[in-house]
Amino acid sequence: MFIEKLKSLLGSELVSASESELYRHSKDESFHQPVEPDIICFPESTDDVVKIMQVANEFNVSVTPYGAGSGLEGQAIPVNKGITINFERMNKVIDFSPEDLTITIQPGITRSELNEVSNRQGLIFPIDPGADATIGGMVATNASGTTAVRYGSMRDQVLDLEIVLASGKVIRTGTKAKKSSSGYHLSGLFTGSEGTLGIITGISLRLHGIPEHTIAARCTFDTLSACAEAAQTILQCGIQVLRMELVDDKSIAAVNAYGNYDIPVAHSLFFEFAGTKVGVEEEAKLAEEVMRELGCNNWEDASTSKERSQLWTARHEIAYAYRHVKGVAVTGADVCVPISKLPEMVDYARLLIEESGLNGGILGHVGDGNFHTLVSFNPTIPSEQTKAEYTNEALTFRAIELGGTCTGEHGVGLGKRKFQEAEHGAAIEVMKDIKQLLDPSNLLNPGKIFY
Amino acid sequence: MFIEKLKSLLGSELVSASESELYRHSKDESFHQPVEPDIICFPESTDDVVKIMQVANEFNVSVTPYGAGSGLEGQAIPVNKGITINFERMNKVIDFSPEDLTITIQPGITRSELNEVSNRQGLIFPIDPGADATIGGMVATNASGTTAVRYGSMRDQVLDLEIVLASGKVIRTGTKAKKSSSGYHLSGLFTGSEGTLGIITGISLRLHGIPEHTIAARCTFDTLSACAEAAQTILQCGIQVLRMELVDDKSIAAVNAYGNYDIPVAHSLFFEFAGTKVGVEEEAKLAEEVMRELGCNNWEDASTSKERSQLWTARHEIAYAYRHVKGVAVTGADVCVPISKLPEMVDYARLLIEESGLNGGILGHVGDGNFHTLVSFNPTIPSEQTKAEYTNEALTFRAIELGGTCTGEHGVGLGKRKFQEAEHGAAIEVMKDIKQLLDPSNLLNPGKIFY
Ligand SMILES: Cc1cc2nc3c(=O)[nH]c(=O)nc-3n(C[C@H](O)[C@H](O)[C@H](O)COP(=O)(O)OP(=O)(O)OC[C@H]3O[C@@H](n4cnc5c(N)ncnc54)[C@H](O)[C@@H]3O)c2cc1C
Ligand SMILES: Cc1cc2nc3c(=O)[nH]c(=O)nc-3n(C[C@H](O)[C@H](O)[C@H](O)COP(=O)(O)OP(=O)(O)OC[C@H]3O[C@@H](n4cnc5c(N)ncnc54)[C@H](O)[C@@H]3O)c2cc1C
Repeated sequence: MFIEKLKSLLGSELVSASESELYRHSKDESFHQPVEPDIICFPESTDDVVKIMQVANEFNVSVTPYGAGSGLEGQAIPVNKGITINFERMNKVIDFSPEDLTITIQPGITRSELNEVSNRQGLIFPIDPGADATIGGMVATNASGTTAVRYGSMRDQVLDLEIVLASGKVIRTGTKAKKSSSGYHLSGLFTGSEGTLGIITGISLRLHGIPEHTIAARCTFDTLSACAEAAQTILQCGIQVLRMELVDDKSIAAVNAYGNYDIPVAHSLFFEFAGTKVGVEEEAKLAEEVMRELGCNNWEDASTSKERSQLWTARHEIAYAYRHVKGVAVTGADVCVPISKLPEMVDYARLLIEESGLNGGILGHVGDGNFHTLVSFNPTIPSEQTKAEYTNEALTFRAIELGGTCTGEHGVGLGKRKFQEAEHGAAIEVMKDIKQLLDPSNLLNPGKIFY
Repeated sequence: MFIEKLKSLLGSELVSASESELYRHSKDESFHQPVEPDIICFPESTDDVVKIMQVANEFNVSVTPYGAGSGLEGQAIPVNKGITINFERMNKVIDFSPEDLTITIQPGITRSELNEVSNRQGLIFPIDPGADATIGGMVATNASGTTAVRYGSMRDQVLDLEIVLASGKVIRTGTKAKKSSSGYHLSGLFTGSEGTLGIITGISLRLHGIPEHTIAARCTFDTLSACAEAAQTILQCGIQVLRMELVDDKSIAAVNAYGNYDIPVAHSLFFEFAGTKVGVEEEAKLAEEVMRELGCNNWEDASTSKERSQLWTARHEIAYAYRHVKGVAVTGADVCVPISKLPEMVDYARLLIEESGLNGGILGHVGDGNFHTLVSFNPTIPSEQTKAEYTNEALTFRAIELGGTCTGEHGVGLGKRKFQEAEHGAAIEVMKDIKQLLDPSNLLNPGKIFY
């Protein structure tokens, strides 16, 4: 059957059905039910991926792409079993053009590997989800992170994609030009489609110059909504932050415990300013003035690399601080709302967590209006899971009512399907029609995004 | 028949078939053959547009949206006749949220009207094609202009669209959140689709703060490729220009004659730097140093609003300088290539124009790698038109070979259809399938983008 066919077409060293590989590819970083694929393929080229799709068509088997498995919504879980494609052997740089600030890569390269290559030429790829994800996975989920307030999301970085369609045909969606008004915007359509419309086998990206100078800062406020209002004021003053993160007191306490830090336990804003030395110093000073006028406490700033990383390391560890507790599962919302709705939204999030009686915190990329709740529960106690999910749902439906989205960056996968109708209304039918058009036999990552 | 039905459904004051209206809606700013529609509708609401689509379906009549008619590729010419929809009565602001830097508008508002509203709150909408286009037309062509190097194109500004589909159903493509990973990216798909996939009846956009301080500058180089290399160096140094325009000596001569200016007739770079006062002054100084090191001549800069506009007015008038000559038609390429290919591309453009024996110049938004040729010809002499078109074609095919696009900003319409196959290859089939899916009876702006 299809497993034999795959082995003969790809060679047996490019496929595996070992217990440990089946287990590794049964799950991601979410709490969704693991499902093992029947087999995992490790293609080395676009041609290999074409062959896999031919077999999938011949035997009518599902195909699920897998990046680093760091997804938070179950996107890489092969709910229909079948073939999982792991891209770790497709991790090469195909074409690097520092003078154009562009690079073409295979999808399996991770963001830290990409930055290693880029940094050597004074360039960065700034999109930074909290995990060392693959660039293929990041394109597939339209990932972003702490720098979205300046650089946008993955979709804003993608110039061109090579895609293997469900039919096995290969297309390119763009060019290497920085802008284009030619044809329909397929790059944008495939970005964020979570492997449901086609398989990404090549990616051309924008890179950016490493800013000459960076200043980090942190301050605290008495209430969470005061933090959110302060973030809004920064944006209204036109201060060009590179990063602006909100972290509530609970999360500070959690990370203090996890990493033996000694950060003031209070609702905090973390900043980074980057650019030319003079410009950045001016901006950091202006930000400090504005924050002090709004009554902040504990303003601290730092411009050497070591001090900066001290100010910020804690921020980067918070997700793990919640996740490292044994016997505890973590769920969370990923809402993004118009900035003016942030203060009421963070207060509402806080209320919901308190009402649930569970342990949980709030943190977010507030420069975009995006924030997360992280709610811990005991997965063996069903009522705890129900309560945890209720906080997500109530918060997310409120975000949608206020003109926001159910997912600012993590994507839909399994976990956010229930919000699609409320968020997209009649447009859902158009999305389903596009799925049906491009993947008529529903081979590509079935069960994701839509029910 | 359908005209009677439209009159009875919309009321006769919202339809016209007067000679002058038929003439006005038969053409745009391109040299493509005018075609008159059968009737023009002036809807006042989304509901009116739905009614128009119902009539179009019932009588199987083509529908062509019309903005300001400033398109350069014949996009608004109703080649199959039928119904033209003019949006001038749908030009209202629906929701303005300065604190979120967002605004929701109807499609018929022009960019200068939008800026009037925005400026009152210290905000701007920075996308600036050379004409006072409607925002609906600008979304439909994914327009951009001199500020794309900083702010990107229309697609980068669009948060949400209200679309009337060919079926008459109304959908929304996004939300008011600044980023989202939910569902397929329909906002990006409809943006740039030139009225062929759906009719835009509402638009939510990002706005931006007005920079505190601006400095304009201009300098010249001995050769065109030296200008292009200098532009490339500016980008590599990470200098954050707001605008960076290349204008060749022929175009300077043309605009001097047109506007009675006295600008040094040489290949020129025009700059604008914007941000905080200290930061901008630093950047302008750095740019000057870099340009002088590269051997520029005639460096001039200015920071008062009056002097700045003196430095730049000429740049804005060039398109008209070519177009105002009686009995002369103008055609031009709109290529966009990776920045490193610019020097060879501008030299090649120059060579092609010289070989054609026609009058023409080169200018462009070189910060993005986008530039235009403007070639004048006598439309009553077929051999001149052939030669003019040959320069476009040779240049555009070369751009595509070098990883570029046939249209950086003007769109495809009628004039760039011949390049679609070369640029998009097999992806064309996917685009045609999407058109067929969303508009199975080919009612919406038929004949555009594809043959
Ligand atoms: C601690 C932690 C912090 C995080 N922080 C953030 C954050 O700040 N922002 C954020 O956006 N995300 C964040 N995430 C989520 C996750 O890192 C992102 O969703 C990331 O983009 C997933 O990439 P991956 O390579 O791990 O993909 P996977 O999880 O393996 O797969 C994700 C999806 O991509 C598809 N896919 C993978 N490769 C391809 C391909 N070549 N072609 C087509 N489809 C493909 C898969 O089928 C699946 O649908 C975080 C996760 C963790 C564990
Ligand atoms: C002197 C001059 C300079 C120019 N400079 C630039 C430049 O720098 N950059 C640039 O990008 N362009 C430039 N242009 C071209 C032109 O201004 C743009 O293409 C503009 O976006 C067209 O907008 P419009 O409102 O005039 O649309 P129209 O020309 O009327 O229509 C353009 C297309 O949009 C569609 N459309 C209009 N409204 C809607 C709607 N509501 N729903 C769906 N489809 C709709 C039409 O069907 C058509 O396909 C220039 C033109 C001139 C004359």
